[in-house]
Amino acid sequence: MTTSPQVTVLGLGNMGRALAKAFLAHGHPTTVWNRSPEKGAEVVAAGATRAATVADAVRTADLVVVCVVDYKVARQLLEPAAAALRGRTVVNLTADSPGAARDLAAWAAEHGIDYLDGSIMTPTITIDTPDAVLIYSGPAGLYQRHAPTLAALGGRQHHLGADPGRAAAFDVALLDLFWTAVSGLTHAFALAKAEGVDGADLAPFATSIAGLLASSVDELAERVDHDRHDADVATLETVAAGLAHVIEAADRRGLDTSVQRAAHAQMRRVIDAGHGADDVSRLSAALLPGG
Amino acid sequence: MTTSPQVTVLGLGNMGRALAKAFLAHGHPTTVWNRSPEKGAEVVAAGATRAATVADAVRTADLVVVCVVDYKVARQLLEPAAAALRGRTVVNLTADSPGAARDLAAWAAEHGIDYLDGSIMTPTITIDTPDAVLIYSGPAGLYQRHAPTLAALGGRQHHLGADPGRAAAFDVALLDLFWTAVSGLTHAFALAKAEGVDGADLAPFATSIAGLLASSVDELAERVDHDRHDADVATLETVAAGLAHVIEAADRRGLDTSVQRAAHAQMRRVIDAGHGADDVSRLSAALLPGG
Repeated sequence: MTTSPQVTVLGLGNMGRALAKAFLAHGHPTTVWNRSPEKGAEVVAAGATRAATVADAVRTADLVVVCVVDYKVARQLLEPAAAALRGRTVVNLTADSPGAARDLAAWAAEHGIDYLDGSIMTPTITIDTPDAVLIYSGPAGLYQRHAPTLAALGGRQHHLGADPGRAAAFDVALLDLFWTAVSGLTHAFALAKAEGVDGADLAPFATSIAGLLASSVDELAERVDHDRHDADVATLETVAAGLAHVIEAADRRGLDTSVQRAAHAQMRRVIDAGHGADDVSRLSAALLPGG
Repeated sequence: MTTSPQVTVLGLGNMGRALAKAFLAHGHPTTVWNRSPEKGAEVVAAGATRAATVADAVRTADLVVVCVVDYKVARQLLEPAAAALRGRTVVNLTADSPGAARDLAAWAAEHGIDYLDGSIMTPTITIDTPDAVLIYSGPAGLYQRHAPTLAALGGRQHHLGADPGRAAAFDVALLDLFWTAVSGLTHAFALAKAEGVDGADLAPFATSIAGLLASSVDELAERVDHDRHDADVATLETVAAGLAHVIEAADRRGLDTSVQRAAHAQMRRVIDAGHGADDVSRLSAALLPGG
């Protein structure tokens, strides 16, 4: 009979509690710790052991999962427990930047701690369901060793490579895409409303347009990878002209147009650098330093 | 035997030529005019009659389709031909703002010209294919009269209502969504590249995220229509924190972050007004004047 690996979850915010419950539900002896100990009573009721300190929490863990607000907080928790963590594996599912992930990986290596970095790409409610998407980076062998335990979190899980910053790089890029797009989406519904168009009327068209965005991703990726920016459908000039109409219409209704103005100005800078007849993919190249 | 309605197309840019070819392909006697007469030789070769002036072009037309760069140019063409246009129908497929559409509709009414405003939502290559999407606004009876002729343009065609600015309102709102989202998409691929992640590796995840955007549209519409902004999945505070990570990561790589900074600042203003615990749908309400 094999013993189910012991898991420790540090941080019992919404996501941390969901992670702890998933490990418990899959039969892992689970220890939890949270800075304010009043949080997570339902996780303890579900069978988790609450530890008084991080060092106590990790002492017998096969896998230490960290899910806190950012890496500054993660380091504040982990550094005093470095001795207890030696020889153990930390999987840091805190969202932060690739640089912060690499820095924490370097700290872990100095202290003899095995380290995987990861990001949870889907909302809390998806944990332990087929809809969860989690990405990891760090040593491949280390990931493979813990993948059966991490499977408790559900859905699709991907190891992206050895660079510990790689999962965070995907994470920030995808956050960038999503929240900038949501900024445009919320503005579009405000502009429509200002023109007397109800959300319900715009919605089917907006869904199609968002679908068009999804179907344009592969071509953009191919253009970026091959630095090929000849215009196929729309040139940067025509896109900038379209955005100018948007700004004019939104201004006339007194809407905040700061995001659209920034996007338009960015396009104008790339056009003024001589790329007006190129595809919008040129933006990806031009945004890079020296691009 | 019925005679196929005569169509005139004013403006032979890429889209105008595609429209003229579609009318010809569906058996409509088609007259064309373009400011520079060297444009559109292939449309004339396909059977169109080229007119020397706008007035000549419209004199026998059942339907006059306008497709030029903006409404300023549209008015420059139409105003001198007002007498020849009296009693005829103009369908203006030029992209511009709702206000410009309403102004042109008012001018047409003053001159006894029937007027429909429209927008072509899909690229030139979709014209006369099932993928075309066109939207119209203006008098419903007028639209119904010409719908069989307009069917030559292909795909799905929608009459959105009597307000002549309504098609343009949908158009600018959807341009807003699409190009702001594309700005985020191109930035995401630049950020990934700066972190050593190839477009091809990011693409499947980016496609999923864009799909998530599409699947979030109906809920946003419902929230906007009912002014309901209680947070369900993510609060504005957590979104702003995520965007701050994006900006930090992009700054570290020397990328232009003007669009993301504008989106973040806009969110901060709404948070500072006391809405930090709300859903991002609050942005749509807060962007409106007095919101």
